[in-house]
Amino acid sequence: MSDLTRLSLNTATTKRWTLREAVDGAVRAGIPSVGLWRDRVAEEGLTESARLVRDAGLRVSSLCRGGFLTAADEAGAQAALADNRAAIVEAAALGTDALILVVGGLPEGDRDLAGARARVAERIADLVPFAREHGVRLVLEPLHPMYCADRAVISTLAQALDLAAPHPAEQVAVVVDTFHVHWDPALAEGIARAGRENRIASYQVCDFNLPIARDALLSRGMMGDGVVDFASITSMIDAAGYTGDVEVEIFNAEIWDSPGDQVLSAMITRYGDLVLPHLT
Amino acid sequence: MSDLTRLSLNTATTKRWTLREAVDGAVRAGIPSVGLWRDRVAEEGLTESARLVRDAGLRVSSLCRGGFLTAADEAGAQAALADNRAAIVEAAALGTDALILVVGGLPEGDRDLAGARARVAERIADLVPFAREHGVRLVLEPLHPMYCADRAVISTLAQALDLAAPHPAEQVAVVVDTFHVHWDPALAEGIARAGRENRIASYQVCDFNLPIARDALLSRGMMGDGVVDFASITSMIDAAGYTGDVEVEIFNAEIWDSPGDQVLSAMITRYGDLVLPHLT
Repeated sequence: MSDLTRLSLNTATTKRWTLREAVDGAVRAGIPSVGLWRDRVAEEGLTESARLVRDAGLRVSSLCRGGFLTAADEAGAQAALADNRAAIVEAAALGTDALILVVGGLPEGDRDLAGARARVAERIADLVPFAREHGVRLVLEPLHPMYCADRAVISTLAQALDLAAPHPAEQVAVVVDTFHVHWDPALAEGIARAGRENRIASYQVCDFNLPIARDALLSRGMMGDGVVDFASITSMIDAAGYTGDVEVEIFNAEIWDSPGDQVLSAMITRYGDLVLPHLT
Repeated sequence: MSDLTRLSLNTATTKRWTLREAVDGAVRAGIPSVGLWRDRVAEEGLTESARLVRDAGLRVSSLCRGGFLTAADEAGAQAALADNRAAIVEAAALGTDALILVVGGLPEGDRDLAGARARVAERIADLVPFAREHGVRLVLEPLHPMYCADRAVISTLAQALDLAAPHPAEQVAVVVDTFHVHWDPALAEGIARAGRENRIASYQVCDFNLPIARDALLSRGMMGDGVVDFASITSMIDAAGYTGDVEVEIFNAEIWDSPGDQVLSAMITRYGDLVLPHLT
């Protein structure tokens, strides 16, 4: 039996489960930590969600997600900031200091990536004091470049770290998600730098499946089913000094259609085979 | 009427046309240059292809393509080198000095990107003397990271320039293809560096369409139909001192199903509206 001490179930992996079902499933499987999604938390209610997770003795490794900070109009910007403040409050109430941010793509019809990136930088600066008051870190997620225009104008660790640089590491950090960054020729340097700067807030694992799924968001796969070199990347994360949870986050239609307990069982096996041996 | 002096038709854009039809189409449309594909050249015969293009008074802006240099076994490596030498001879015979290289992805079942990249570096070094003898430049193409595992383990201009660095600029250069590199947060630096190093051998334009096509290779779109900022990127190319042809290369099922003359007409209009104004 593998050591599951650092394993976390990101509940997007068992998308059809309610938060309550995911908590019960994690407990049954011996998984000590969960990464939560705001929609499932809202469905159960914030206070009740926090109570459920606490009573089950689980850690909350992250809350997904805030972000979408690229609106070009003032109303859109204010709505995004308000939503992110709400997410910060939720993260604190759930007992996690990691709020994952998917920063957003280009506004409809807009092609100005530099402008969108500048707005992200401004709005992170706006949110930092509020996040600090609540003991929450803003965790920037570089997304695969295929989502640059429609999901996140941050595509690399170097870029995320540059955006984080003006702020203390306790307030702005990054998540390393194998699906999103495995291709990066500068990945080793990016992870090493993130470690040196104490900014690795989360390590998310899932595979990159080929061919790319018809809905490109669903190309994430169970570790071992795609092209990601988990040995190399996990060794880099380990060498960078990361000692936190390893979240399994998979969006995949076939996995979502499988029974949740079976998914957790596969996830535990693959984690034990492909990831755990490279953590010291 | 736009100034078409620098416009080149990459014949993949009119995929159903034979080389002869593409040459005739370019002449009818007043396009002075063509980028050729080896399969269509082979169909017509190398000598006859060269004659056809020369007699039509067209330039050959590039030959697509060599590459696929990542085989892990000796037989695969030797076969790839032989094929690339053949492509170098063909480029010279066709009167172009630019042989575009798509360097190849991971061998089946392999996940070692660093190893594949090292093999690419070695095999480029192998090919350089032969390319020099024939007056041909090896033109490395960074491909969009979504093709990293199955088409090209080079994903950024910085990476391509690092691979080119051990060799003279006359022998190893890069192509900037808007589809592949538009997302790169380090694009401005990459293009400026490529210019400083005299390594921009080709500028290829086409859009990045969303949603990503079911066959991800066919997500390339007519300029203006997707998310690419042609004004910004073309200005960077211009500022970097590039004065060569601008090739339109589009893989897109709908465009392939349209009459070729209509595609050329649309291409001329969009080039005139979106690209040409940013070339000095």
